[in-house]
Amino acid sequence: MSRAILAEVRKGFADQVRFTEDLVRFPSLRGQEHTAQDFIARELAKRGYGVDRWRIDPEEIRHHPGFSPVAVDYSNAYNVVGAMRPREETGRSLILNGHIDVVPTGPADMWSAPPFEPRVEGDWLYGRGAGDMKAGLAANIFAVDALARLGYRPAATLYQQSVVEEECTGNGALAALLRGYTADAAIIPEPEDNRLVRANVGVIWFRVHVRGAPVHVREAGTGGDAIGAAYTIIAGLRALEERWNAMKGEHRFFEDVDHPINFNVGKIEGGDWASTVPAWCSLDCRIAIYPGQDPHEAAREIESAVRDAAAGIAFLANSPPQVEFNGFFARGYVLEPGSEAEGLLARCHLATFDAPLESFVTPGYLDGRVFVIYADMPCLVYGPVSEAIHGFDERVSLSSTERITGAIALFIAEWCGLERI
Amino acid sequence: MSRAILAEVRKGFADQVRFTEDLVRFPSLRGQEHTAQDFIARELAKRGYGVDRWRIDPEEIRHHPGFSPVAVDYSNAYNVVGAMRPREETGRSLILNGHIDVVPTGPADMWSAPPFEPRVEGDWLYGRGAGDMKAGLAANIFAVDALARLGYRPAATLYQQSVVEEECTGNGALAALLRGYTADAAIIPEPEDNRLVRANVGVIWFRVHVRGAPVHVREAGTGGDAIGAAYTIIAGLRALEERWNAMKGEHRFFEDVDHPINFNVGKIEGGDWASTVPAWCSLDCRIAIYPGQDPHEAAREIESAVRDAAAGIAFLANSPPQVEFNGFFARGYVLEPGSEAEGLLARCHLATFDAPLESFVTPGYLDGRVFVIYADMPCLVYGPVSEAIHGFDERVSLSSTERITGAIALFIAEWCGLERI
Repeated sequence: MSRAILAEVRKGFADQVRFTEDLVRFPSLRGQEHTAQDFIARELAKRGYGVDRWRIDPEEIRHHPGFSPVAVDYSNAYNVVGAMRPREETGRSLILNGHIDVVPTGPADMWSAPPFEPRVEGDWLYGRGAGDMKAGLAANIFAVDALARLGYRPAATLYQQSVVEEECTGNGALAALLRGYTADAAIIPEPEDNRLVRANVGVIWFRVHVRGAPVHVREAGTGGDAIGAAYTIIAGLRALEERWNAMKGEHRFFEDVDHPINFNVGKIEGGDWASTVPAWCSLDCRIAIYPGQDPHEAAREIESAVRDAAAGIAFLANSPPQVEFNGFFARGYVLEPGSEAEGLLARCHLATFDAPLESFVTPGYLDGRVFVIYADMPCLVYGPVSEAIHGFDERVSLSSTERITGAIALFIAEWCGLERI
Repeated sequence: MSRAILAEVRKGFADQVRFTEDLVRFPSLRGQEHTAQDFIARELAKRGYGVDRWRIDPEEIRHHPGFSPVAVDYSNAYNVVGAMRPREETGRSLILNGHIDVVPTGPADMWSAPPFEPRVEGDWLYGRGAGDMKAGLAANIFAVDALARLGYRPAATLYQQSVVEEECTGNGALAALLRGYTADAAIIPEPEDNRLVRANVGVIWFRVHVRGAPVHVREAGTGGDAIGAAYTIIAGLRALEERWNAMKGEHRFFEDVDHPINFNVGKIEGGDWASTVPAWCSLDCRIAIYPGQDPHEAAREIESAVRDAAAGIAFLANSPPQVEFNGFFARGYVLEPGSEAEGLLARCHLATFDAPLESFVTPGYLDGRVFVIYADMPCLVYGPVSEAIHGFDERVSLSSTERITGAIALFIAEWCGLERI
């Protein structure tokens, strides 16, 4: 049977690549994920899933401890969940989750080809979102498709989730949980190099607003240079980053990670005019926290690092920089070893890759925290080989994606069991 | 006669303030000076000036050594010149020049009141452009108006110039010169604290484009952080600034200026996403040069400072930062002491202020360079007391403006002579 499933996945793989390419063509950047979500909803309906498509209402989820502040309009922030139910619920239920949102492309001229025009070259499928994580979303759907072509469906409820906001708040996966979607396990095929995520960091986003005192540059010495001051504050936050990294020995699974806590200034904007000492500067920042670290406590440390860094700058005395938490406010998580789900995935991986499943620790945010922390579910973040996610010429390995799809299909067959359609 | 002129200026001053307020209401930011220029053209026509209003065509002026690169659309970049001609040309001709363009306001919430809503409080008229330099533009027009109310006009051709682009290229004043406007002297009532500018710096604008290598922040160590690299380049340019300041002893009139060469990063933009190591960053910079320093040579020094600063950054090896000259490419100038025009201004100033005229050296760009360098004209940059030009709550002293207007009126009467209307 395993062999038949893997053969069927292979047979369907050309279609799966086309489907993934179709997904890449949707520029599902934050705030404009809805066209891609409409496509997913249609495709799930076509396959017989019961489709639930709803707009995330921040009011409905903001009381939850896993909620992250919302800084953008949610009027097009739709989640899509397709439910496939068996005649008789004999197996274990499963959520196959993926996110539809992609990060900005950066300057188009630094790409070899247009970022939303998919392109296959050798084993690589190129395009923004190809790896992170449209290949994974397609794998979820095509794993079930392969079983269907063999005449089977899962013998337990299976949910296909396509969520938004994974790249900025994690509110999409959280909203799906709070809408009532739980199961006996979850899989998220994020681009993880054919490995299983054992633990990951939480992430906090914040914006630092620096206000200077603009003067004509002829009086440059007397003004308050907000851009210069911003760099002093960056240095203060780098020091916080190093203090947190120095604590890695206290955090299980992170002891041997080279640099688990990465601080990043991802965006900067300041000033209006070359000949005016800049009056304002804002920094969009991201920093990681360890599993177990409370985002609220971390936020206080961030605020005090900014305050301390600004203390040496005279013109900020009466208008200290403001810290605004404008996105991720999310905990990290640990996937406790030894779950049945992990054991099964290890067997499916071995059958597909002919190699043992490795687990690792990743210093990036994952929606897995929603399932693990807030629903006590084993969540297997496990997906294909990729390169340059968030970068230029993002790409995903097709041979890896095919095998991941096979492993997921095998997992479904064992975890949920199968029934004849 | 002098007393009559000064009394007439005083009588007209309430109207002059209203006129200045009207000017402040026009948000004549770069690219949108045209509505204010239309107003000036109407006002000059109403007073009997022959009005010349034309759009600056970069093609017509780009061959000139005083030309600065144009980075914006000139489709609304209109100069206005009003000519008042005598029946008989018996005196010396004169240009009264001012610029209509103003710099951006910065965040409106840092102003005590809306920046384009003029407001008088005590001796101060507040508003963006009030000092720099709509009070001066109005002074030029009302000085001639006062003479007219007494029944006189200049006995030599007098041009009222309202030019654009003083805050970014100096191409407005240059275009007026190349259209043929010259005279025996020029006055520019820039906000100079009732003093005469003896010498000023030239200015160069440039944009530095840094290109990094974006990666997911989980791999932060391997990417190229363009925002971080930009800071290294700023440090390199600060070192250039200090080298140039150290040379002040070699430049006549600048030996005793505290810090003649100011380098400013007036605007910064970089990156797209908090969780992506930023792939790009651009800096809008301004630096001064001494009179006599060739902008082309200075540009080469700037480029090499950027190159040297970038040399230590591995990820820039294959994509060194680009320097784009996108505005001022302008020489400084010296007003040689001893001209007849200066001698006359000193007498008019003494008559008005009851204090000797002081001259000084300013570390900011002035359109005076166009007249002095490229037309060999004495150009008297001399205007009212102001505060916070380019800053928040910009303001100009009304009592100072009234006296400056009086001094200009006296100057016209003596320099041009007067004839009965």
